Amino acid sequence: MPPRTEGARSDRSGSTRRQFLLGGAVAGVGAVAAIGVDYALNRQDAGTAAPASTPMNGEETVPFHGTHQAGIDTAAQAHGLFLALDLLDTTDRDGLTRLLRILTDDAARLTQGKAALADSEPELAAAPARLTVTFGFGPGLVARAAGSAPSWLAGLPAFSIDRLQPEFSDGDLLLQIAADDPLTVAHAARMLLKDARSFASLRWSQQGFRRAYGTERPGTTMRNLFGQVDGTANPEPGTTEFDSVVWVEDGWLAGGTGMVVRRTRMDLDKWDRLDRSGREASVGRTLANGAPLTGTQEFDEPDFDATTAVGFPVIPPFAHMRRARGVDGEKIFRRAYNYDERPAGASVSESGLIFVSFQADIDRQFTPMQQRLADLDLLNEWTTPIGSAVFAIPPGCREGGFIGETLLGGSS
Amino acid sequence: MPPRTEGARSDRSGSTRRQFLLGGAVAGVGAVAAIGVDYALNRQDAGTAAPASTPMNGEETVPFHGTHQAGIDTAAQAHGLFLALDLLDTTDRDGLTRLLRILTDDAARLTQGKAALADSEPELAAAPARLTVTFGFGPGLVARAAGSAPSWLAGLPAFSIDRLQPEFSDGDLLLQIAADDPLTVAHAARMLLKDARSFASLRWSQQGFRRAYGTERPGTTMRNLFGQVDGTANPEPGTTEFDSVVWVEDGWLAGGTGMVVRRTRMDLDKWDRLDRSGREASVGRTLANGAPLTGTQEFDEPDFDATTAVGFPVIPPFAHMRRARGVDGEKIFRRAYNYDERPAGASVSESGLIFVSFQADIDRQFTPMQQRLADLDLLNEWTTPIGSAVFAIPPGCREGGFIGETLLGGSS
Repeated sequence: MPPRTEGARSDRSGSTRRQFLLGGAVAGVGAVAAIGVDYALNRQDAGTAAPASTPMNGEETVPFHGTHQAGIDTAAQAHGLFLALDLLDTTDRDGLTRLLRILTDDAARLTQGKAALADSEPELAAAPARLTVTFGFGPGLVARAAGSAPSWLAGLPAFSIDRLQPEFSDGDLLLQIAADDPLTVAHAARMLLKDARSFASLRWSQQGFRRAYGTERPGTTMRNLFGQVDGTANPEPGTTEFDSVVWVEDGWLAGGTGMVVRRTRMDLDKWDRLDRSGREASVGRTLANGAPLTGTQEFDEPDFDATTAVGFPVIPPFAHMRRARGVDGEKIFRRAYNYDERPAGASVSESGLIFVSFQADIDRQFTPMQQRLADLDLLNEWTTPIGSAVFAIPPGCREGGFIGETLLGGSS
Repeated sequence: MPPRTEGARSDRSGSTRRQFLLGGAVAGVGAVAAIGVDYALNRQDAGTAAPASTPMNGEETVPFHGTHQAGIDTAAQAHGLFLALDLLDTTDRDGLTRLLRILTDDAARLTQGKAALADSEPELAAAPARLTVTFGFGPGLVARAAGSAPSWLAGLPAFSIDRLQPEFSDGDLLLQIAADDPLTVAHAARMLLKDARSFASLRWSQQGFRRAYGTERPGTTMRNLFGQVDGTANPEPGTTEFDSVVWVEDGWLAGGTGMVVRRTRMDLDKWDRLDRSGREASVGRTLANGAPLTGTQEFDEPDFDATTAVGFPVIPPFAHMRRARGVDGEKIFRRAYNYDERPAGASVSESGLIFVSFQADIDRQFTPMQQRLADLDLLNEWTTPIGSAVFAIPPGCREGGFIGETLLGGSS
């Protein structure tokens, strides 16, 4: 870990500094407004007037500092925004360090319901709604830092099913911004992009959603826009299985992980023409509750050897579930989001899945599974990967540190 | 009101018919799956296993049938999708009637947490999350129905500030689909568009959001992406003022209203360069809590005559609030949504407001105000209207009726 000497931005983050900076921003406005700003900034701390009986999930926070970055083992929030930035040619190693210090400071504040420094809409920061900001490093960033990249960071092999578009692929720096409130996400994204502007340009942006906060009981597995239960086989955060699947153990990535982001277009029109039995066969699970076709409950273990009365496998050979299942070491942790955007031209929908997975070793855990699915998976009939990127997710940091310090060194 | 004789689609909506239809759809699947489907369809009715202590806002419903359509005086949901369709040339008056009967039936089911007829993803309908579907008729639809159009349906005058794009303007049939859950909205939109496909094509689509369910205390006024409190002057649903502002009293529109939908791009980059006092002067309200600059609380009555020590008006002559304020008859009811989309090219944001207002007489209540704002409003420096449309919102209907029956006649 770096020495704690690094400075002005991070270790003077108390309310005195915040009020000083905002005092500057509101110079010339009446005292009433200035008091209002201070009120808005401090409502999280002060414990405001909400009656205890009102569920105010807007005030819920997820800790920013820690061994791991937040937003990975955090129960997935309703809204996720994925931003990939490219470093400007002028951003050298020192510039990169400055960028990451600034963005870390922004994220540490915003996730706790506090305005970022020089936040011009501080009131929009007051409802964090479990906001997390997770940073990922592409191969270009690690090279700029003159760091050693894990072999999987070079990228996935070309899969025959891919129809990749550059506007959804690759990138130097990933920001995953997620919260249970869409306005919170929009404001955090705006702040981070403003502060990154001198160092990097926006390469792509993908907005996704899951069920809203409170729609379903906690622990319910997400459904995608095909109506399928999606993510049943996930390891459970907090278990030793999860830890071994997700966290890297050595080097500057220790406590971090590897991230795959793939944008998969779903052809809902074509899917409409498939009946329920065809849909269930394509995945190997019932649509009603996600149970394997050989079981009755979502989490029942599938019986791949079971056959029908006439001898065919109950879970077909081409079923997504059968093809995705690998040997023990090939597990991944999924944290996907749906997308549904304004369609262009004559189409009535532009929809799909922002597939997101975390795993310690992408080459070993993810790629063999994706290769099997590319070779044979009935779902390929209705889905097309149109974007793909991999990122190294560095570990978390302590208060006063910054995300990336294990790569870049903490003192500068 | 139409006679109650009209038939097959609407007045046999009980669970027997639903199970019959779904029984057809699941033919060939095992009994387990069919039971699961039935379970999913009936969980709203059955009162399911959620512990009473868990807030499950996903199961909340807004009644579909009534004197007025839902989605107007309904407390605004977190997610709003606005779809404008153009009738195909082949859709005659009878076809239009069929279309509206089908869409009414879909909306009546989906809003109550029930699958639409032939819904191919019935499980996605199980969490209505206060879903409402509100229908609006453009001038082309009223002409196709050979109905008499209110004079304001011809459209707004051209305002000097407008930079309208056809892909966000006009349309024959508007569907406002709103719920507290984005997946619910996506599924309802998909069902409605599928059922409309033989009669109409999608002209434009706009997705918007407000604060998520539970982020703020009920009754809190929305903030837009400029950080402004937006909609303070709204009449309160349930009051006689609201009724007189919103509902039409005569003709086939009795119990209905007029709707304006204007897409306004907000230049956040330029707004960033304005300090807080400039921002507050542009609107005439504090950013902190939306109080008029002459008051301390959001709902304080502004004092337009108040002057500063040196004699200038406290609320400047060009302030949005002063310019928007009309004579008594010019009130409107606002129900706006923010938008924040994937930017194209070098921009870091593509954001703004889907301005939505309801008023009985657009010419008398809305147009004079908009004309004053077009002539002089400091906010015009940072905002540009890029889409505009007006719709006649017909009244609601009773069970067995359909939206539009007062225009088209109920018996056919």
